[in-house]
Amino acid sequence: MSPRAEQEVLFANDVFYRAFAERDFRAMDGVWARESAIACVHPGWGALAGRHAVMESWASLLANPRSPTPACRDPRAFVYPDAAFVICFEELEGNFLLATNVFVREKGAWRMVHHQSGPTADRPAPEAVRDDRGPLH
Amino acid sequence: MSPRAEQEVLFANDVFYRAFAERDFRAMDGVWARESAIACVHPGWGALAGRHAVMESWASLLANPRSPTPACRDPRAFVYPDAAFVICFEELEGNFLLATNVFVREKGAWRMVHHQSGPTADRPAPEAVRDDRGPLH
Repeated sequence: MSPRAEQEVLFANDVFYRAFAERDFRAMDGVWARESAIACVHPGWGALAGRHAVMESWASLLANPRSPTPACRDPRAFVYPDAAFVICFEELEGNFLLATNVFVREKGAWRMVHHQSGPTADRPAPEAVRDDRGPLH
Repeated sequence: MSPRAEQEVLFANDVFYRAFAERDFRAMDGVWARESAIACVHPGWGALAGRHAVMESWASLLANPRSPTPACRDPRAFVYPDAAFVICFEELEGNFLLATNVFVREKGAWRMVHHQSGPTADRPAPEAVRDDRGPLH
């Protein structure tokens, strides 16, 4: 994989978690693919398929001040010619989930087509926990 | 997406679960990509990255007669030009997990590059539970 593509994918992943943390639905809407089929598995939920169902779930989550907003830790990108996925920890009040985020290229930009997050017994490396600033800073 | 590509991806997903159920390491080895970076998140585990770590985990799981072998239920394929993912339930002794399986094309064949499975409160549609024969029969 090219270092540039890897950086672009990690940036797209970062934009997703910033939109999540800032409860910014417009930014979240921009993260997700518009021309490709999408799906989403929130922790413990069933699978949501299609843009309407997926974005409705985000609108509901981001509008709820009690819904948790995870911080991304230790993201690792796996990049193929026109698709990629990122594995990362999601830190929620000292607890950790592990997420898979899948991206495809749409008009040259990496857009999310799938997110699944679930429990893990693993923990990020200590330096990844200490670095509060995301992978690109 | 073309119906043929969707069928090919669902077949590759089916081969994965058959290898799992039959504890067939050679078939499992053939399911996973050889030329592309791979990763795997078994339920509750941390992420494994790289062919050596991923295949070692499968060798260990398939060699252990006490490790569970899930049946695939209600698989749904999301296919892009050179990549795809399948979301499906995994049934284990009446319990259900939800899995994401990511595939890329290698020399024309769909090969797995990532698997993540975790708990879900959802259940497959009744007809998917009743159909024991997989999606292609």
